[in-house]
Amino acid sequence: MSQSKALAGFHAVTARLRNAADTIQALYYDPTRRDARMQQLLARAQQAGVRPISADAARLQGLVGQTRHQGVVALCAESTRVLSLEEVLDQLEARTLLLLLDGITDPRNLGACLRTAEAAGVSAVVLPRDRSASLSSEALKAASGAVESLPVLPVVNLARAMDQIKQAGVWIAGADHAAPLSVYGLDLPGPLAWALGAEGHGLRRLTRERCDQLASIPLAGQTESLNVSVATGICLFETRRRWAAVAP
Amino acid sequence: MSQSKALAGFHAVTARLRNAADTIQALYYDPTRRDARMQQLLARAQQAGVRPISADAARLQGLVGQTRHQGVVALCAESTRVLSLEEVLDQLEARTLLLLLDGITDPRNLGACLRTAEAAGVSAVVLPRDRSASLSSEALKAASGAVESLPVLPVVNLARAMDQIKQAGVWIAGADHAAPLSVYGLDLPGPLAWALGAEGHGLRRLTRERCDQLASIPLAGQTESLNVSVATGICLFETRRRWAAVAP
Repeated sequence: MSQSKALAGFHAVTARLRNAADTIQALYYDPTRRDARMQQLLARAQQAGVRPISADAARLQGLVGQTRHQGVVALCAESTRVLSLEEVLDQLEARTLLLLLDGITDPRNLGACLRTAEAAGVSAVVLPRDRSASLSSEALKAASGAVESLPVLPVVNLARAMDQIKQAGVWIAGADHAAPLSVYGLDLPGPLAWALGAEGHGLRRLTRERCDQLASIPLAGQTESLNVSVATGICLFETRRRWAAVAP
Repeated sequence: MSQSKALAGFHAVTARLRNAADTIQALYYDPTRRDARMQQLLARAQQAGVRPISADAARLQGLVGQTRHQGVVALCAESTRVLSLEEVLDQLEARTLLLLLDGITDPRNLGACLRTAEAAGVSAVVLPRDRSASLSSEALKAASGAVESLPVLPVVNLARAMDQIKQAGVWIAGADHAAPLSVYGLDLPGPLAWALGAEGHGLRRLTRERCDQLASIPLAGQTESLNVSVATGICLFETRRRWAAVAP
């Protein structure tokens, strides 16, 4: 893919240097800033084979718009390969949305969840490596190309990944049809991760216990639950709706 | 099914006598009301082989809660058979929700739409007889039992059915991803019918032209559209959310 993305600030640029330096097309820095943090970053760039380009404050700001850049901006190719969870957590913003899928075993449901997540602007999907459908051709077809631009991150232990996600400052909301609180009455601070469980079983206990809050979608009929991709859509799009209604 | 439902008022009870008198378990009426309308209804009941039971105002009100009963209440078995569109339109209430599916050809998508519709409290689903997936075992499995309590009404001509639905006072909202107006900015008066189109093609022109308003779901990624059952869920549950937020 030829799209570029500007990463601003020490945290994001250092993470990209560490995790995917080869995707950095240009690294701009403010030469008037000579503190230790900048020295470290420049040394790291050199190690990674990236040559920094000096730029004045106006040029740096022009690259990133309103974002605070701390004197350093990297123009990066949007990587289509799978990032690491660490890198995703390094790039958190106030409106970052993540999706945790706890054991979706039907490939078509998995694909539909990925398509829905990509359309809702989710930054990455995290799922347990051994308890999920694989990205088979059936799943990829249902995903309608979503995996081209949406990182899917299989993890060995979902509960441990959730601890890591929470430590990075992400609020975790879990969908649970027994929860007394409704999705519409839920606090939805960003960055946010939605956790949805397997067809039939819902979230596993260890997953449920790690959610900061649990919420249900109020159902009006006899049907006891929604298809997981439909539930995913309602949770994610309700979050986007709410976030769009208030300034970041 | 052994569940009972109380129908209140001349309109609903007359419709049930006309369309499915055999589902009426008991017909209660206020004997102090002796006008022509009541005489007509009692005559119709007799014709249909239903024996009216006199009841005082307190008993009638007790059967229907807050609903206005006009002196007549029918306790009916929830019919599992397909009702007619006429009967559905005879029983409209302020919060009646209908779903029009314009040519869903994938049985699993159709089933998932039905499951979603039932869970959102939709009163009936209308679809074109010759341009839809049939209720095959695959569709029924994806529907998760929804068709047990949700009437699915195949019609010869969807455009004509939409005219009939509009004439009955139902507002029709169409989901169209090219529409500039967002689902979240839409007027959603009740009774309301949501129209959703086929995978890939969306609503056909004749269907789109008959919608009172078109709206899109704002997407945040590269994906151009949502799975139709996910889009159905977002439209229907957004309607329920909005209706729950204001008194009827």
